[in-house]
Amino acid sequence: MKTIGIAVVGFGTIGSGVVKILQDLAPLIEKRTGIYPELRWVVDKDITSPRSVKVEKAKLTTDYKEALADPSVEVVVELVGGKGFAYTLIEESLKGGKHVVTANKALLAERGQKLFMLAKEMKKSLLFEASVGGGIPILRTISHSLVGDRIRALYAIVNGTTNYVLTQMALNKSSLEDALKEAQRKGFAEADPTLDMNGDDAAHKLAILATLAFHTELDFSHVHYEGIEHIALEDILHAERMGYTVKLLAIGKRDEDNRLELRVHPTLVPKDNQLAFVHYEYNAILVESEYLGTSMYYGKGAGSHPTATAVVADIMAIAEHSREGNFELFRPYQRLEVKSMDEITSRYYIRFHVLDQTGVLAQIASIFGKYGISIASVLQPEQSETTSVPLIMTTHEARERNMRQAMEEISRLSFIQDKVMMIRIMDGH
Amino acid sequence: MKTIGIAVVGFGTIGSGVVKILQDLAPLIEKRTGIYPELRWVVDKDITSPRSVKVEKAKLTTDYKEALADPSVEVVVELVGGKGFAYTLIEESLKGGKHVVTANKALLAERGQKLFMLAKEMKKSLLFEASVGGGIPILRTISHSLVGDRIRALYAIVNGTTNYVLTQMALNKSSLEDALKEAQRKGFAEADPTLDMNGDDAAHKLAILATLAFHTELDFSHVHYEGIEHIALEDILHAERMGYTVKLLAIGKRDEDNRLELRVHPTLVPKDNQLAFVHYEYNAILVESEYLGTSMYYGKGAGSHPTATAVVADIMAIAEHSREGNFELFRPYQRLEVKSMDEITSRYYIRFHVLDQTGVLAQIASIFGKYGISIASVLQPEQSETTSVPLIMTTHEARERNMRQAMEEISRLSFIQDKVMMIRIMDGH
Repeated sequence: MKTIGIAVVGFGTIGSGVVKILQDLAPLIEKRTGIYPELRWVVDKDITSPRSVKVEKAKLTTDYKEALADPSVEVVVELVGGKGFAYTLIEESLKGGKHVVTANKALLAERGQKLFMLAKEMKKSLLFEASVGGGIPILRTISHSLVGDRIRALYAIVNGTTNYVLTQMALNKSSLEDALKEAQRKGFAEADPTLDMNGDDAAHKLAILATLAFHTELDFSHVHYEGIEHIALEDILHAERMGYTVKLLAIGKRDEDNRLELRVHPTLVPKDNQLAFVHYEYNAILVESEYLGTSMYYGKGAGSHPTATAVVADIMAIAEHSREGNFELFRPYQRLEVKSMDEITSRYYIRFHVLDQTGVLAQIASIFGKYGISIASVLQPEQSETTSVPLIMTTHEARERNMRQAMEEISRLSFIQDKVMMIRIMDGH
Repeated sequence: MKTIGIAVVGFGTIGSGVVKILQDLAPLIEKRTGIYPELRWVVDKDITSPRSVKVEKAKLTTDYKEALADPSVEVVVELVGGKGFAYTLIEESLKGGKHVVTANKALLAERGQKLFMLAKEMKKSLLFEASVGGGIPILRTISHSLVGDRIRALYAIVNGTTNYVLTQMALNKSSLEDALKEAQRKGFAEADPTLDMNGDDAAHKLAILATLAFHTELDFSHVHYEGIEHIALEDILHAERMGYTVKLLAIGKRDEDNRLELRVHPTLVPKDNQLAFVHYEYNAILVESEYLGTSMYYGKGAGSHPTATAVVADIMAIAEHSREGNFELFRPYQRLEVKSMDEITSRYYIRFHVLDQTGVLAQIASIFGKYGISIASVLQPEQSETTSVPLIMTTHEARERNMRQAMEEISRLSFIQDKVMMIRIMDGH
């Protein structure tokens, strides 16, 4: 019997899922692949609290070195998270001759480069399918299935918390605050949801996606990101009326000169676009490539069991193909330039709250004109008597730098109440 | 420089696409993988007609044996189609020590078993990602990404012609005939579209999907299939009004006792289901599995370039992982029983044309009652004065055998005009 020995480090949500799948399906997996995935160790600082799965005592340890010292362990699964101990663990595992599987997007996006070089040097695999899109096999698809294609752009919904909140707002007309509470109640948002809500999580995932899609090294600091914290229900309803739905998109684009755009921000997605139908905790990655055209990959982007399927797939890829260290996802061969946000172009949705007086539209339009921004539509919803009324505009394609300058100037006009809201519109669709 | 030598046999639509990608991207592919895919031979009976790509004369031959005799050829790409010569070609290639990549679903579904056994014996890979869903990486996903999961059901739109026709009917209110002509004009239907329209093509693809998804050997004759030839615009419009869209679905399901349903037929898909948004020539495969949950894979299911990306991905999978014959998709380890259609259960849409007289509904309802079929809804659209009026019913879950018997009995009633139309409703959604 061929086996592959596994140590799972981090006995939390995903770790429990991996243990569960191995306990339930190891004999089936052996039938399918000829290799039995054998759980040797489960490592955690806390090995006494009850979990959703039971692990025999002899396999539990608080000391990861015990697992690393076991020669029967071929794969170390890093599920502790964070950028400190996780780094050390992966480094020591590779140096100790183990393959590594991880779901740690923040670590890979910010400190991955060195670890991948180390893996290469040690002729070991460092796989990370679970780091983006949970159980959606997007990294394999980009690296292996599209090896004979050229990706032009990615549009991805890769954060379940924000997608849950935005969906809840749109479908149930909830405020952002209420929608977030609902997400927390249902387990789709953390107690402290900051890193999800502000786009940080999606930005890390975009960095990983873009590295593979564009075969490039890149610095996480080059990814521009904005969150959904300031999206008001009002904006979602205006957008709906205009045929759009608001999504937090992670966008990676390569232009003709091989310069990249890497940005995460709320985006107006046309309602007939596939991404508009990705609701609640679901994720999806839409890929535009030269030969395949548009393709999309959809599924649960988080959660114990979905994410665990990706971890197990990585373990078995190693078992089947990486004994010689040859199953790799990460293999950039260039360093493409990333454009600054000032350089990008987009169409824009802008929502003002203005005093209800004459000449407002003319003054705004004249500032847009000055910056070469042409207006595509104006919407002034009828409103009950209040001093401040909404005014919604969309623009044709404009340069972000011009837009930013125009917005600064408009914001200083005396009839502008509140902060002006600007949301980019998904391009080319 | 590591290379992999390739012979493309069949210089038609897909063959030209493969040649095009290799000509355009081979240096890029080498950068990505470290292996240069080198086109050595293009074989076709006709090597003189102009193609969309140019191949130097020295690489063109009408004699496949010339390509097989070349020791620098490691992979033979079979793109001739059909079940005769293609079989011989694959057999001789494997026996000659070549790996094989094919897009030939009919051959694999009906005569694949022996070829896979031969490949195994020869320690060569026989890959076929392009046979289902064109460039959508669905076979890899099922075999490798879901290796640690258990698939319960597949719902797939895998025939571009019929999906084009149904979309055209629904969105432009065309008759089936006009929609088909439009599809032919646009190149999405063949001059003789029989094997697409009658479900045969989708059935072959379902057989391949099910073999991988359920890890089972199966006979193509166990796949039940019906086409869309009899779908009337009227049915599509009634369905729309009831919140459904009509799709030709390929359905594979495994029940608790590991018995399978394998069926291709027009199906009412709820409009909020992801599959309802798969329009025109696009394909999508929705997978329900125990751990990942619902996932979906969407893209172009046919055409020269999309399909060629899958062929090139297979070639490079062989180059990277199969020098030892170990990158396999096909590895069934059981033979599951397939249920007869009489045994399945479903909800049903039924459309009658009846004489506009009293007592009609009562008589129909009484026959349904006799067979234990309970009615979920009745719709009798207002109609201009004609002697025959439509009557649309949906049922709750019922057994197909009972349904068939009830329909036979109802069809004999004197007030029934025309043939009764029955369309199954997508379950569990």
